[in-house]
Amino acid sequence: MRIEHLDTPVAIVDLGPVEDNIARMQTHCTKLGLKLRPHIKTHKLPILAHKQLQAGAVGITCQKIGEAEVMAAAGIKDILISYNLMGQSKIERLAQVASQARISVAIDNQVALSALGAAAKIAGSEIGVLIEFDSGSKRTGVQSPQEIVELARKMSKFPHLRFLGLMTYPSSPTLADWIKKVRPMLKAEDLKLKVISAGGTPATWQGLGHESLTEVRPGTYVYNDRMMLGYRVAKLKDCALNILATVISRPTSDRAVIDAGSKTFSSDRLPAELGTGFGYVLEYPQAIVERFNEEHGMIDLSRCTKKPAIGERLRIIPNHACVVTNLHDEIVAHRDGLVEAVWPVWARGKTR
Amino acid sequence: MRIEHLDTPVAIVDLGPVEDNIARMQTHCTKLGLKLRPHIKTHKLPILAHKQLQAGAVGITCQKIGEAEVMAAAGIKDILISYNLMGQSKIERLAQVASQARISVAIDNQVALSALGAAAKIAGSEIGVLIEFDSGSKRTGVQSPQEIVELARKMSKFPHLRFLGLMTYPSSPTLADWIKKVRPMLKAEDLKLKVISAGGTPATWQGLGHESLTEVRPGTYVYNDRMMLGYRVAKLKDCALNILATVISRPTSDRAVIDAGSKTFSSDRLPAELGTGFGYVLEYPQAIVERFNEEHGMIDLSRCTKKPAIGERLRIIPNHACVVTNLHDEIVAHRDGLVEAVWPVWARGKTR
Repeated sequence: MRIEHLDTPVAIVDLGPVEDNIARMQTHCTKLGLKLRPHIKTHKLPILAHKQLQAGAVGITCQKIGEAEVMAAAGIKDILISYNLMGQSKIERLAQVASQARISVAIDNQVALSALGAAAKIAGSEIGVLIEFDSGSKRTGVQSPQEIVELARKMSKFPHLRFLGLMTYPSSPTLADWIKKVRPMLKAEDLKLKVISAGGTPATWQGLGHESLTEVRPGTYVYNDRMMLGYRVAKLKDCALNILATVISRPTSDRAVIDAGSKTFSSDRLPAELGTGFGYVLEYPQAIVERFNEEHGMIDLSRCTKKPAIGERLRIIPNHACVVTNLHDEIVAHRDGLVEAVWPVWARGKTR
Repeated sequence: MRIEHLDTPVAIVDLGPVEDNIARMQTHCTKLGLKLRPHIKTHKLPILAHKQLQAGAVGITCQKIGEAEVMAAAGIKDILISYNLMGQSKIERLAQVASQARISVAIDNQVALSALGAAAKIAGSEIGVLIEFDSGSKRTGVQSPQEIVELARKMSKFPHLRFLGLMTYPSSPTLADWIKKVRPMLKAEDLKLKVISAGGTPATWQGLGHESLTEVRPGTYVYNDRMMLGYRVAKLKDCALNILATVISRPTSDRAVIDAGSKTFSSDRLPAELGTGFGYVLEYPQAIVERFNEEHGMIDLSRCTKKPAIGERLRIIPNHACVVTNLHDEIVAHRDGLVEAVWPVWARGKTR
């Protein structure tokens, strides 16, 4: 079957670019002397996680325990959960996952540290711990080297926890300062910095702060999207994930409406400096995907000389691949238009 | 079990407000002399569709054929699909649904009209047709009364199609002009305007254009959300859908980070005139949900005198209920905190 015969809207992934993207990022990281631990939030597919490992990744990164459960059940043996976990349910689930795979978890506070300790004790196996610091993204992460040392020190109370090192997001030039300050402080406590992990596809391609790192956790590179085009770290040919949509209305000469909106693409915008609009239409590069309702996408055709007819199908690169993946139960994998597989997105919706 | 014991993040719905919202909207529409055909895109749950019908709704509205398939399979017998359908797969699926329930469909062009004709022929049963006009929202819908008449005239070629009337979104004061113009034109063709259908929760509460209408299709009123609060058509007590989330980090005195972001809430913003931010925190009304990453929600506590601790759970009203529903495989139904059911969101992800 060819993609031309799929019902729309549908999320399709071109395997040629996916394989190229995986190989290219691995080569890049190897050249920089960095271990690659891809974040699977972008694809949420065990089969692509396995492809990333086969290409040389040292393990994978998950953001939620639900994602880690799916990946462990699919035979993946080295998983970092880059996220504070807490509460009895998460402790018990983490203990189960830790008995199936080598698990490390990032924390930035003592509640999360104690939860890891409890999970490791139930599992009876070691859990590795990274301490997250805030290198500028102002979300999670401790705010000072002193806090890192205090948390690392407290870890010794938990016999099944092993201090591995530090984590932040994204990679940035400010990393070096943090590491310079905290390394001697940790050394004074006899704590070894085995892992220093950062992330982000643009920052990884740009090699930001790579001299200070041992490992990177990019996710989006596997598919790429309009945001990566905006950051100039991907070309059109590297954008593997498209939404295939149908023009279902042409109310005016300048407007086409497609059968896909925010429930298919998400409402994620580009960072302001990268532009406006909600997608790049491959067949009509001058078209502007200007607005979404839930199931309608309004396309401004005023700059197009040729214009699509009702019933015509469009391939559109979304703004943000990772949230698109999370909207679709299935992804159609094709090679140059020939369908090879329909993959259930097993880790979709695993926000817990 | 009480909601306090649920793992987070989780979408929870309070049945008291849901039942009140359903009853109140039905009473309102009955008073206005309007039939109520609720849009199920907000909840995507057969059980709530049945509750709406039991309260007096004449049928339901779906936006996609996949939603209609779920609702027909759950025993619902009168379904409007307010959306242009086309293509062989949709024709065949529509024929199947039309053999299970009384189906009407809205169209704004001849390709969609022909598809309906083909489906009705396969089904061997009647499909009702509404012609959609654009009363100002600039998405789908014909642009002139003449186009309505032309489409209605073409309908006579299809023996299983029955012209029912007109549809637009949302209800607005401009409706009256359209109807005044097109009514005599249709009468001259011997076509009766049985149905004039508009929609939208705010417009329905405000009664916009109701003198011209026979039917309304509000959706959001069943749950309400921060947008409805902004439009002043709901109060806090009417907001039935919350995200229950946990504070997983307190990096600074003014910042809390919760375990829920755009993959739990969506990235939908409020219309600019209604404000900024991504949610209303019931326990901390002064808190501002200022940013989301995929699994992180950053909350600005600078205006709060009392501040949440790590591990504390928050109930948050999302900006837009309809897109939240579409992110969650299950909704936990509770009554004042006591869990009554966990409902699979069967029509979630039915974008086709």
